Amino acid sequence: MDKVRKLDRVAAMTKILADRPRYIFSLSHFCELFGAAKSTICEDIATIKETMGHFGLGIIETVAGAAGGVRFVPTMPVAETDRLLHGLAQRLAEPDRIIAGGFLYMSDLLFTPHLMNKVGEIFRERLCHLSPDYILTVETKGIPLAFMTARAFDLPLITARRGSKVTEGSSVNINYVTGSFKRIQTMSLPKRALPDGARVLIIDDFMKAGGTARGLVDLAQEVGAKVCGIGVLVATARPEPKLVEDYLALLILNDVHEHTKVTDIRPVLTSG
Amino acid sequence: MDKVRKLDRVAAMTKILADRPRYIFSLSHFCELFGAAKSTICEDIATIKETMGHFGLGIIETVAGAAGGVRFVPTMPVAETDRLLHGLAQRLAEPDRIIAGGFLYMSDLLFTPHLMNKVGEIFRERLCHLSPDYILTVETKGIPLAFMTARAFDLPLITARRGSKVTEGSSVNINYVTGSFKRIQTMSLPKRALPDGARVLIIDDFMKAGGTARGLVDLAQEVGAKVCGIGVLVATARPEPKLVEDYLALLILNDVHEHTKVTDIRPVLTSG
Repeated sequence: MDKVRKLDRVAAMTKILADRPRYIFSLSHFCELFGAAKSTICEDIATIKETMGHFGLGIIETVAGAAGGVRFVPTMPVAETDRLLHGLAQRLAEPDRIIAGGFLYMSDLLFTPHLMNKVGEIFRERLCHLSPDYILTVETKGIPLAFMTARAFDLPLITARRGSKVTEGSSVNINYVTGSFKRIQTMSLPKRALPDGARVLIIDDFMKAGGTARGLVDLAQEVGAKVCGIGVLVATARPEPKLVEDYLALLILNDVHEHTKVTDIRPVLTSG
Repeated sequence: MDKVRKLDRVAAMTKILADRPRYIFSLSHFCELFGAAKSTICEDIATIKETMGHFGLGIIETVAGAAGGVRFVPTMPVAETDRLLHGLAQRLAEPDRIIAGGFLYMSDLLFTPHLMNKVGEIFRERLCHLSPDYILTVETKGIPLAFMTARAFDLPLITARRGSKVTEGSSVNINYVTGSFKRIQTMSLPKRALPDGARVLIIDDFMKAGGTARGLVDLAQEVGAKVCGIGVLVATARPEPKLVEDYLALLILNDVHEHTKVTDIRPVLTSG
């Protein structure tokens, strides 16, 4: 009977922890749920920790203190990250993705949940040392990616709008120049969206000259927040330098040949 | 030793299954991963099934046939769904959410990952009998909600844009009249986004007169898809009837008093 119950607790706890990455669950939460002693729950957690580590599925962290407890931090084995980024590069290089003007059609991938789930985890893994309080993006195509990154960090997402919206109350607006087309555009953020001094990580799907990212940096500063980093799924190799200095790209787009239908896009790997 | 290994397999399998709801994993996938016999994996799955059921965390379904295997279908106990919807209603009724014009500021909740994760699961639970092939929404605020619904169904999300975008290739455009303001707007969908005859479930954050939902229905028909249902997080009680006939709302907004700062919003519960 005891064997079954440990199995039950371990399975249920794994599900609950994995369901909300990085959220700290108090041990007493599990004690109550299973009617078990704290020492029992600690043993169960040790088991889960070992298993997750063994299969490269994640880390269980114990957080001390009054607000302490345990949390699940998903990890991806380097080989899996590499395989995923290679796979994305391969799909983005499909000839029929090339749109007049040398653009790549990416929406189908950007709106596929299990892919963005993984990409969000990769961003968290590579950028967690920046300790952001919020994830920031601008509508539209980058939202799912930024949202899943926010989910991996267990942080809220803030979405800037193009133009200001009547249903969001008073907002701060800035004008910015898109790097690629040299067009002036407006971006806005509700005043209440970010508290003063918040550390913000910008996540977007695509960067060419970096004008949009530059605009987001300015907008964040305008509302008193501090940008601690920038991550994009795809950055073009040219123009270089970009309008922002420091950013992490997961894929580099070297070239799109409209005529020959050849796209040269490569993953940025951390392994040798 | 065997005890530990069963625990390990159960914990790892739970994580892998829960990570991708509704996706069918073949048994041989797990046999390879753990170097275990099919009968062993089947026993493990029976354990997980029992535990998930016992704690109301989800259902493990076995799918027969060549493309068969097992999948995890998250469930939420009715009491938890009710608690979540009550909690959302309460937060939406906070006086400082009322914006000039009688709008409610909802963006902070709509962009909070763990909330939308749950709301997505509620939509799946209440609408899965419609068997959609795609989830459809329109930019911007409804995207995270629709994306998490798509994740719960393990389906791709299709996002209509306001106006047509140069980076999405040739698209189908329609004009529609917003029910509330009687303004004519344009909505577009890339031609390649939906295959002919696809069953589409529309998900959005807010419905007043239903003009946007009506526009999405027309747009879907224009590209040859069939709308099988509509789900919105909040619908206003008035005007009634809406411009679409059949929809599911999780919360009903009866009234927003700008002057007294009182908002009357109630959850739609399935329990008595």
